[in-house]
Amino acid sequence: MANYQHHRNETSKPETSYNDCQKADDNEYDDTEQPVGTNLTHEFSFKDANEILRDLCHDQDEQATKVKKRKQKFQVHHLQELFETKLGAKHVDYEQSTASIVKKCCEEFSSDNDEPFYIVNLSHYARQYLQWMHFLGRIHPFYAIKSNPKNFIIEIIAELGGGFDCASSEELNLVRETCGNNFDYATRIIFAHPCKSISHIRQFRQVGVQMTVVDNEDELKKLKEHWPDAKVLLRLKPDDRHSLSPFSMKFGANERECITLLRLARKLNINLVGCSFHVGSQCLDPKVYTETLKQARRIFDIAQQDEFGFNFKILDIGGGFSGYDWDKPSFPEVAKIINNTLDKLFPKLEDITIISEPGRYFSSGGMTLVTRIIARRIHNRVYKSNEKIVKLERNISGSTSNSFENNDDSDNNSESDKALIENADNIYYINDGIYGTFNAIIFDHKTFIVHYLKMKKDKKKKYPQFRSVIFGPTCDSTDCIAHSIDLPLLDIGDVLWFPGVGSYTNASASNFNGFQTKKYIFIWKK
Amino acid sequence: MANYQHHRNETSKPETSYNDCQKADDNEYDDTEQPVGTNLTHEFSFKDANEILRDLCHDQDEQATKVKKRKQKFQVHHLQELFETKLGAKHVDYEQSTASIVKKCCEEFSSDNDEPFYIVNLSHYARQYLQWMHFLGRIHPFYAIKSNPKNFIIEIIAELGGGFDCASSEELNLVRETCGNNFDYATRIIFAHPCKSISHIRQFRQVGVQMTVVDNEDELKKLKEHWPDAKVLLRLKPDDRHSLSPFSMKFGANERECITLLRLARKLNINLVGCSFHVGSQCLDPKVYTETLKQARRIFDIAQQDEFGFNFKILDIGGGFSGYDWDKPSFPEVAKIINNTLDKLFPKLEDITIISEPGRYFSSGGMTLVTRIIARRIHNRVYKSNEKIVKLERNISGSTSNSFENNDDSDNNSESDKALIENADNIYYINDGIYGTFNAIIFDHKTFIVHYLKMKKDKKKKYPQFRSVIFGPTCDSTDCIAHSIDLPLLDIGDVLWFPGVGSYTNASASNFNGFQTKKYIFIWKK
Repeated sequence: MANYQHHRNETSKPETSYNDCQKADDNEYDDTEQPVGTNLTHEFSFKDANEILRDLCHDQDEQATKVKKRKQKFQVHHLQELFETKLGAKHVDYEQSTASIVKKCCEEFSSDNDEPFYIVNLSHYARQYLQWMHFLGRIHPFYAIKSNPKNFIIEIIAELGGGFDCASSEELNLVRETCGNNFDYATRIIFAHPCKSISHIRQFRQVGVQMTVVDNEDELKKLKEHWPDAKVLLRLKPDDRHSLSPFSMKFGANERECITLLRLARKLNINLVGCSFHVGSQCLDPKVYTETLKQARRIFDIAQQDEFGFNFKILDIGGGFSGYDWDKPSFPEVAKIINNTLDKLFPKLEDITIISEPGRYFSSGGMTLVTRIIARRIHNRVYKSNEKIVKLERNISGSTSNSFENNDDSDNNSESDKALIENADNIYYINDGIYGTFNAIIFDHKTFIVHYLKMKKDKKKKYPQFRSVIFGPTCDSTDCIAHSIDLPLLDIGDVLWFPGVGSYTNASASNFNGFQTKKYIFIWKK
Repeated sequence: MANYQHHRNETSKPETSYNDCQKADDNEYDDTEQPVGTNLTHEFSFKDANEILRDLCHDQDEQATKVKKRKQKFQVHHLQELFETKLGAKHVDYEQSTASIVKKCCEEFSSDNDEPFYIVNLSHYARQYLQWMHFLGRIHPFYAIKSNPKNFIIEIIAELGGGFDCASSEELNLVRETCGNNFDYATRIIFAHPCKSISHIRQFRQVGVQMTVVDNEDELKKLKEHWPDAKVLLRLKPDDRHSLSPFSMKFGANERECITLLRLARKLNINLVGCSFHVGSQCLDPKVYTETLKQARRIFDIAQQDEFGFNFKILDIGGGFSGYDWDKPSFPEVAKIINNTLDKLFPKLEDITIISEPGRYFSSGGMTLVTRIIARRIHNRVYKSNEKIVKLERNISGSTSNSFENNDDSDNNSESDKALIENADNIYYINDGIYGTFNAIIFDHKTFIVHYLKMKKDKKKKYPQFRSVIFGPTCDSTDCIAHSIDLPLLDIGDVLWFPGVGSYTNASASNFNGFQTKKYIFIWKK
């Protein structure tokens, strides 16, 4: 942990220049590797992406350089043994771009091997940890395993001193398999699910976990019966309208409910020790932290009243921290607001332990998906032209409406998707899709950025762009990754790669139709 | 196979009374087991469900009796050894209802075990096979493994003489693990994916598979290089507007493309042996079969012309057959139309082998999901009332619109979902959800039917109904199974069970947050 120590005195004054950095090192590319005149950064047709793209195109190189410099400050060579010996990672030079690493990995495979894989930069997780301690040193991070439940992330965060937010027995078992029996389960694990199975409670207890959260009366009664000695946090309900994945519909107690819970906990003799909240995944407005911290302060104060008599000592500020350097607000901006609010509302002299549950903050970056074009259908329009006109006419006249088709918007969307597909020049089929890594398009509002790599390329040639469709590998037509995207003419065997695919991707991928990206290649950078 | 032999002479005249049957035996329930005055058949708030429900409520008991009688004709006692010895299934009396089997299974678990499980009626798969041969005896079924890739289904269908539609190496490996090396891979497997990875092609070849499909020029070239001795079917593009999951956007060649492919195949000396098509999953209009069979006939005729000189001998009519007895059009109705069309267009004397790729036909029924209520939030409205009014006002005035919220329909939907949740009386959390079995709501347009089972019930008591929400177990608020459904007041530990959940459910479920239904309990009925 020595490497971040000399930065810790800067905690209260984050570098402002960092706020401008919008391109992480694992999303970089080098122009020399790519054909001239090609816009490499494409955008899928999903909401909120335009803004991100606009930012990305502005002073990209300058920003990338800044991020590189900042990240280089957080040296991770003391983890060399863990990376190389235990996890089998290969060291690559810090300056080496993701594009050239992708190229090297693809060339190392024989031409026979067209399976998709992830390239994982293990230093990323260590750097994110060190950056966290630099900007938010007062707050202990408990990595939310659900965002990417992989042993290599757990291993690194455990090594650096972090804890874990587990929501199920299986997540707990993953920590046990990775960290063994000597891990301090009492202080470094929180069973952060407000609605727990009794069988799961039993397993957490057996391992020695002590902390959990609660947001309803039945859960308190359940704890009384099945986990009477738990240290319990009240989970508050923030106003999470500005989060891309809000949780307040499902979890959290408002102030009125909290008072009822305080009363019931007193009656049942439950050991309430603090508050927790979660502003929702991908919180876009840092004021939500400020407001919810005020709520938490109020509940801390109410809990102390004679009627309840609790002395709260733990505050869990949850997750919601973005994982990309180009996200707005940036992590240092959010950190600054949180630090200031904490200093006012929960000053250090009160000796309150502050923890948090960052998931995507750790796992979003660092992982690149590398897929192959396994099949293609080129000059699609030539064949479709007649058919297309017929379909469009039918569409306009509305004569196809019948009992099986309705006019709601989801159908209109799929109708326009259909038109986009039919109007495309080229159709590519790659070996990961909507049921795999790209499930994040459906479940996590995720925007993916695609890069291509031609395996046999003519350096001097200019590649014109064509309107293209990218389908996933399954038999389902829902499995479409991009309906309309500009790409040059690519061959079967060429590569499409996607940086920054680490959170809520492989975590919620299924094996549908027998397709799933299972191979991980590890690298690390000093 | 003796049991369906004496029915095969009836192939051309399906029982018309069967068309009225809308309730399968694995969806039955017995009133005596349930509290008085309770409507047990609830419907989730998903499109196209109203119609199904209307059908269900009409003469339900009479229809159930008819289906039972018909199904009883297809006796499966000759598979007793496979069911009991090899798969460990327990025999239950034919008359025993699913409700009482669910109850027994739940009681057998200790009160400590609240994990979800599936109850699988193995006889279902055998009965479906025998029913297929009864109504469509001319057509060899190749089970589409993707719909439910489980060894027990493969085992039964293989035993009865069926083949398999595999779309990936992993699906092929599942057949190899289940059926061993002596299985006839040349005639009983079709690699039915028009867009194949080269590495997958290699594995299919190694095992001895011979048949595959093609729908584009690049795929023909790929086969020329990597599988020159394959027996290849041209995959046609049907008009699948009336299928709930159409495939024509992604796969299939129109007539013009077929002619180009015939020419290229001749040039490359590819062994084209026939046509295939897929009318889309859940085809609701049997005329699509008729129309596409006409297309196929045209291509058969064109292929024979001197320019191409192919003598097509295999016709693959794909899938799209519904798996529930209440679906309209019913299986016998569809079978009748197909038989008539085949007799006209592909008369028996032509000696054409006809195969098909039914998936959900086999796997939709037969499997029941049993979940537990692991947590609850009752009388939600009492706490929420103040907050709710504020939110609804905001909604009407539109004052919340800002850069993070837009007014497109998906957001309006989630806003109204939010209102439904906030207006509900009770909220239940069960241990399977949208990332698990219920992914079919998102990916497969599936309507689920929910039944409840109170573990401690007062037989004499009447249970009033409350507006309720059912959430899945993960930390994600997207994981909501039903936003608004009438249920009595249920306790933690009570059961919600869902019949007919066998297709495109566990097949595309992920393990997100460490939750996945992994336990299967097998039964069989004579």
